[in-house]
Amino acid sequence: MNDAPDIAATSTRTLDVLRHIEATRQAAHGRLMDFLRIPSVSAQPAHAKDCRAAAEWAACDLKSIGFSTRICETAGHPVVLAEHPGPGGPGLNDDLPHLLYYGHYDVQPAEPLELWTSPPFDPVIVEGRHGAKIVGRGAVDDKGQVSMWLEALRAWHEVAGGPPVRVTIILEGEEEVGSINLEGFLTEHRALLSTADVAVVSDTGMWDIDTPAITTRLRGLVYVEMRLHAASRDLHSGLFGGSALNPINALTRILGELHDAGGRVTLPGFYDDVEEVSADQAAQWARLGFDEGAFLADIGLSAPSGEAGVPALHRLWARPTADINGIWGGYQGAGAKTVIAAAAGAKLSFRLVARQDPQRILGGFRAWLADRTPPGARIETEVFGIAPGFEVSADSPWVAAARRVLGEEYGREACLIGSGGSIPVVESFGRILGLDTLLMGFGLSDDQVHSPNEKFDIRCLDHGTNAHARLLGTLGNF
Amino acid sequence: MNDAPDIAATSTRTLDVLRHIEATRQAAHGRLMDFLRIPSVSAQPAHAKDCRAAAEWAACDLKSIGFSTRICETAGHPVVLAEHPGPGGPGLNDDLPHLLYYGHYDVQPAEPLELWTSPPFDPVIVEGRHGAKIVGRGAVDDKGQVSMWLEALRAWHEVAGGPPVRVTIILEGEEEVGSINLEGFLTEHRALLSTADVAVVSDTGMWDIDTPAITTRLRGLVYVEMRLHAASRDLHSGLFGGSALNPINALTRILGELHDAGGRVTLPGFYDDVEEVSADQAAQWARLGFDEGAFLADIGLSAPSGEAGVPALHRLWARPTADINGIWGGYQGAGAKTVIAAAAGAKLSFRLVARQDPQRILGGFRAWLADRTPPGARIETEVFGIAPGFEVSADSPWVAAARRVLGEEYGREACLIGSGGSIPVVESFGRILGLDTLLMGFGLSDDQVHSPNEKFDIRCLDHGTNAHARLLGTLGNF
Repeated sequence: MNDAPDIAATSTRTLDVLRHIEATRQAAHGRLMDFLRIPSVSAQPAHAKDCRAAAEWAACDLKSIGFSTRICETAGHPVVLAEHPGPGGPGLNDDLPHLLYYGHYDVQPAEPLELWTSPPFDPVIVEGRHGAKIVGRGAVDDKGQVSMWLEALRAWHEVAGGPPVRVTIILEGEEEVGSINLEGFLTEHRALLSTADVAVVSDTGMWDIDTPAITTRLRGLVYVEMRLHAASRDLHSGLFGGSALNPINALTRILGELHDAGGRVTLPGFYDDVEEVSADQAAQWARLGFDEGAFLADIGLSAPSGEAGVPALHRLWARPTADINGIWGGYQGAGAKTVIAAAAGAKLSFRLVARQDPQRILGGFRAWLADRTPPGARIETEVFGIAPGFEVSADSPWVAAARRVLGEEYGREACLIGSGGSIPVVESFGRILGLDTLLMGFGLSDDQVHSPNEKFDIRCLDHGTNAHARLLGTLGNF
Repeated sequence: MNDAPDIAATSTRTLDVLRHIEATRQAAHGRLMDFLRIPSVSAQPAHAKDCRAAAEWAACDLKSIGFSTRICETAGHPVVLAEHPGPGGPGLNDDLPHLLYYGHYDVQPAEPLELWTSPPFDPVIVEGRHGAKIVGRGAVDDKGQVSMWLEALRAWHEVAGGPPVRVTIILEGEEEVGSINLEGFLTEHRALLSTADVAVVSDTGMWDIDTPAITTRLRGLVYVEMRLHAASRDLHSGLFGGSALNPINALTRILGELHDAGGRVTLPGFYDDVEEVSADQAAQWARLGFDEGAFLADIGLSAPSGEAGVPALHRLWARPTADINGIWGGYQGAGAKTVIAAAAGAKLSFRLVARQDPQRILGGFRAWLADRTPPGARIETEVFGIAPGFEVSADSPWVAAARRVLGEEYGREACLIGSGGSIPVVESFGRILGLDTLLMGFGLSDDQVHSPNEKFDIRCLDHGTNAHARLLGTLGNF
């Protein structure tokens, strides 16, 4: 813990790098604007050559700051792979950390274009509520966040001849379309990539404009579809009602038991492997002063749901959930149809936390369904996603280093936050490469990610570049 | 009760009529074949003139047997209205019953045509499992069943100069499209029609080929759609799961409580007005030997549903039910979408029995929903149907007369059966005209009603004609 940031601890070399960054800020912003002008929309085939152009732009930039760089073909858009051996050259830095930076050069489609206040691929710097901001597709997700560590590496190159640690970089071009070829790439290059000590990703957010954050928790997922089959055909509810099994009645009866009156999931053993949040962590989250009422009012809700008596941030970040994401059966059209359906179905997702075994949860759910299948019915399940939750310990040296540099940069404590969702690449790094991931991001919740008028506050961009430069210095013991 | 049918009780005049029917059977069949050749498909605009032709055919036939007949225009297909004052002429028969016969001359579309073994509007008489049968659209529903009482009235006309009771006839042309203009017609002609003592309808079935039946129970219906609204937009289940209300979770939780473990509906007071089936009626149903296992096996089910410990025919005919006819919410497409929906909905129907008040059931359901609406959610309901159940007492003189004549005709006891569905016209006769309805029909469950190769067994047709002739004789005290 570093409640009182010790700015004096920053090394002279790092201070030189930070001064250089400050002196060359306009050029750095200009390079990001150039990167943003490439409409590298991975989802749209018409932009395939723009995706390649963005990869080439990044590869060229990385070469200019001392990286050996390759553009690696995949079945889709290419991956930029860059390496720097660290001070002195290959083989001389086995005692220094090896960082694997990950980012993506592709962006979401810009549509609907008519809602943009300026052209999405002609970025502008305008005044926002937090001062100047860059508006354009990819401003924060992820080109802007990538530019932070690119510029930090550039400054170390220009001031010190290179980064003070060994660095490998992956920039993929398919994050916005599900990273469909990334696992294959990681597997193919495992020999190199698994020599890294930690993955560093800037694709997450701060708590607010003044409060830096490290995301140490992501929830995992079991996504399963269930279909309950009853009669061999749709039936007349008058002629058969009272004798024939109604699969929608049965489905609601089963799924209505998924939670108890206190909002807890009733699957046997569901919470067995869920660890309590540490007192330190709980105290830090309490200090954030999260206003769940305002959070919910923003989406039109007046009362919280979920486990009774559990604080909101715990429910969102540190507790597993069960949500029915879709349900169907029988007649859904206008008016009345007196039918007893032949079948009904639902899609469910369990958000899991670290240490819960997704396979065990899935097996438990299937057994729970089997116990509740009415006589004469048949339940099928199909799995559409299974991934564990993620947690990096607050005691991890990477987290400790990141907290220290964020504290130095912002003059206030960085908080450790969670995200209720998943970042699949983090799970892939763990499973395929055996790496933990340090999630140090600088986005804000109002950045309009994936929406028109995506923006990145210059204040976030500049602090983020500084923080990345400091992190390199700290890890290199400068 | 008339367990030992007393054929000797049949009057000489009625026996004359039956002998005449027997002697002119071929001509009667021929008239039905003519009626069936008119493709009076009410749902298809191209057949509008055929509907009118069928109305004119019937009107012409009724005139030929002494009825004063009008073709009454409606906003859709016309209604044939025919009257006969009974023996001696108008005003002389105030002590005799006044019967209101109801039938329909329209038929269902014949499609899919390729599944017919003979052209649907070119009826044929072929051998079936019960001997000769007429195959063609409308063979049983309802032209064949109408022809039974038309031919009975003809025989009384030819033998005795007219029916032995006062008779009014309504033949509508929109039964297969929801009788959309019938209520207006009944209201417009209420002064005449409400002077009837009972409505007689042959649009129902026998228990089996050897066992005649009177349908004395129909279930009513409350059909209601409910929509549960939560957040103002769809949400990401990772970012909001654990805090935001999931309307599908809530919907299944609410509807999952609609039945208890024994299959009883849990709405307070739901069964308050449900009368036990009389011991006599229960004994008669038990003697029918209904094989629920075979009934369910036919639709692919291996176990009964509904109220535990209640006999099958009681569950189907004499007990109310609650069935969810449709449900929807969230993502229903292929694969996974991690969404928490803004809203979810369902359609439900309550099948009601006589003496249950549909408005009270609806109000009780709404109050039950209100008690279960989670904080922050909003439930809307919309009603698509509300009609009471129907029961004619076994002690009704009309039922007693019909049982007697069916017993005489078949030489075995006629049973009193129910139907789990509704026949809207029966409800309209009660509500608008204040009339009970005698449902004496001769269809069989394998008649392929509404399907290709609709048929009517000649054995059913002939017995039905005889039974109607006997009923007229009995009610006219001949």
